[in-house]
Amino acid sequence: MNQTTGVGLLGLGVVGSAVANAIIDRHRLEDPSISLNVAAAVVRDLDRTRAVDLDRSIISTDPDSVIINHEVGIVVELMGGENPAFDYITAALKAGKHVVTANKEVMCKRGSELLATAAENNVQLLYEASVAGGIPIIGPLMNDLAANTIQSVRGIINGTTNFILTKMAHEGADFDDVLAEAQGLGYAESDPTADVDGFDALYKISVLARLAYHTEVPVDVIHREGIRGVHAKDFRYASELGFTIKLLAVAQANRESGLLARVHPALIPLTVPMASVNGVLNAVEVEGDLVGPLWFQGPGAGPDPTASAVMGDILRIASGTVSSGSPTAAPEPFKIASMSDHTCKYYLRLTASDRPGVLANVAKVLGDADISINSVLQKDTDIENGHADLVIMTHPAREANMQDAVSAINDLDTVLRLDSLLRVETYAE
Amino acid sequence: MNQTTGVGLLGLGVVGSAVANAIIDRHRLEDPSISLNVAAAVVRDLDRTRAVDLDRSIISTDPDSVIINHEVGIVVELMGGENPAFDYITAALKAGKHVVTANKEVMCKRGSELLATAAENNVQLLYEASVAGGIPIIGPLMNDLAANTIQSVRGIINGTTNFILTKMAHEGADFDDVLAEAQGLGYAESDPTADVDGFDALYKISVLARLAYHTEVPVDVIHREGIRGVHAKDFRYASELGFTIKLLAVAQANRESGLLARVHPALIPLTVPMASVNGVLNAVEVEGDLVGPLWFQGPGAGPDPTASAVMGDILRIASGTVSSGSPTAAPEPFKIASMSDHTCKYYLRLTASDRPGVLANVAKVLGDADISINSVLQKDTDIENGHADLVIMTHPAREANMQDAVSAINDLDTVLRLDSLLRVETYAE
Repeated sequence: MNQTTGVGLLGLGVVGSAVANAIIDRHRLEDPSISLNVAAAVVRDLDRTRAVDLDRSIISTDPDSVIINHEVGIVVELMGGENPAFDYITAALKAGKHVVTANKEVMCKRGSELLATAAENNVQLLYEASVAGGIPIIGPLMNDLAANTIQSVRGIINGTTNFILTKMAHEGADFDDVLAEAQGLGYAESDPTADVDGFDALYKISVLARLAYHTEVPVDVIHREGIRGVHAKDFRYASELGFTIKLLAVAQANRESGLLARVHPALIPLTVPMASVNGVLNAVEVEGDLVGPLWFQGPGAGPDPTASAVMGDILRIASGTVSSGSPTAAPEPFKIASMSDHTCKYYLRLTASDRPGVLANVAKVLGDADISINSVLQKDTDIENGHADLVIMTHPAREANMQDAVSAINDLDTVLRLDSLLRVETYAE
Repeated sequence: MNQTTGVGLLGLGVVGSAVANAIIDRHRLEDPSISLNVAAAVVRDLDRTRAVDLDRSIISTDPDSVIINHEVGIVVELMGGENPAFDYITAALKAGKHVVTANKEVMCKRGSELLATAAENNVQLLYEASVAGGIPIIGPLMNDLAANTIQSVRGIINGTTNFILTKMAHEGADFDDVLAEAQGLGYAESDPTADVDGFDALYKISVLARLAYHTEVPVDVIHREGIRGVHAKDFRYASELGFTIKLLAVAQANRESGLLARVHPALIPLTVPMASVNGVLNAVEVEGDLVGPLWFQGPGAGPDPTASAVMGDILRIASGTVSSGSPTAAPEPFKIASMSDHTCKYYLRLTASDRPGVLANVAKVLGDADISINSVLQKDTDIENGHADLVIMTHPAREANMQDAVSAINDLDTVLRLDSLLRVETYAE
């Protein structure tokens, strides 16, 4: 056990540098039971300045300098993306290296293959850092909660969109302005698609769903909507009704209806903790049959929190505190449920003609789809142009019925447009 | 791996029955990788009705029927208390059994000895259920956060007192009335000392401190105050000032000032999440140098949540996902800091004569002890008897100075009595 374990880094950006620094710092502490060093690092550009002081001789642009380096026992993959990460991780596992990754995309799209390759080669593939940054959530689902039948996993697991939505909520600002600000602060990429269109959250919820339900949840069966369609007005009306708006990622399952995974903006009651998760914070709520509702909250991104999770996995491997067997298997996978069968309350915002009968028209269309109205607000009447905002909260309705109603509403002469259709997340009373 | 692991239960009350049921249910699921059964159970009274259906032949009053039973691989200790639990756990470990315990008292008072015995005998001693019920907190501190230097662990980890304080806060009720109600509901024992005087929280914070700081924190170095001295009035005044009152258990350390562990009622700003942890919920906030602030919340007690944690440990052992080596050792233990050096703001409530000069007297005494006043409320003036409540919030002050000031205040003629002295918990801005 007192042998030094060599760590090889694929990627030496801000997270890679933070991991390297943590390894160097731990070495300085002279922990007697575990010894680690940075044996090699692979970068794209040898000349870039880095936030870590490593000997130039161990830095290379050749991935094989890590993957097949006999001084490397643990490969840490921090490149992101599906390819070439998948090939590198596969090669490292086949070369008998343990692998630690922070890569949600490859763990979502190719995780099952990679975990099988790890098992075949009798090495570990750990990925705590791939979801919710520094928050321990993979570990608890894999170990601490293993005896539970998980009922749901619901989270705010994309810091960028939560930063944007929080700003919109607090400042009444519009999406485009806040996105530009987030880009200026480095919280959003110049191409913000992965975050604002919900792909990042989708990859992460797929990874959590596989763990919680021992079921493969491919990208194309996950309902995904981003936050581009959420307007400043929606926050104002939601707030009047006792809600805020968050981008939620949810996986829920039971043996009758199957497993449903969904990523979409949702109205959250101001009274539940999820409504108070602000800025770049992440939070995950896990409901288990034995334990009841558990709540995990913390920094969902950033070099040091991510390094904390990566180091936790490295130390697990170095200290031998991981299973040598295959991952716990469940009796049988869940069937995948259709979003069409999901039931919840809905919030609709329409721009409608300001004349008698409009509400009756809309109510009839909803009623024909078996959807009943809970409350209605008429707002921002524009006398000159003769139209107004109509905000409708429904009672619980099936998604398929709501989609039928939406088509019919779009055909109504008295409705100029359906501006927003948002789901209201259901919480126990 | 497909061999069945026999579990022996020391104790078959509500938690023991929930664990037994979870084992039986898991067995029914036919998880192919892990097989468990209840091999034996020890009870005090053979004739009591139980919430689990076990063959009478495996139930006994003789502890040896579990401890030295060759069909038992994992002993689960659910009796509580220091003795005879210590002897039974020791005997089981020496007999080569792994042990899982929910017993905070024995893990606080004798944990180091027991962990050493486990290591000597090359078996595991796990105790996730001993702190915060179903919330994974031991596991994260032991594994996920292992790379962090922990700055503080702060929690609401006694559900009984949190139930009482929440009722007092929301209903303006007095301690004695709410305690009686809690006893009626089964949330408080007929002898409530362990909970309301802070012993239970003390045992738990000692266990967390040992893990977070690799340092032994004996019972007698932990500052302990219970909640009997908190009055309905204090909630009213605290609320006016923007605070609520919770029984906090805290362990905090750095290399300069050492490790301080403390259990006492504290004023908590209404704006931080800890203020919203109500009823029998538990919550633990861990601050690490890499990860930043993490938040864990959930059911802190109850048969099923406790069984969730016990089962997590049992499955860790059965699947081999625990270290075969000794627990991670730190370079050196922290020195123990004295409560006298703790610095915080204070809340004082005095019954004082309602005449000019009283506040000047008190301010002078505080000033002599190097304590400055932040704000003062005069409340509930009783004209007939000529006295009033004086509520003082100080700027940050050393505990030793405050204790000096308290003696001097008690000697003032114009002060009838010092009713309350409460610490204000410090949170980053």
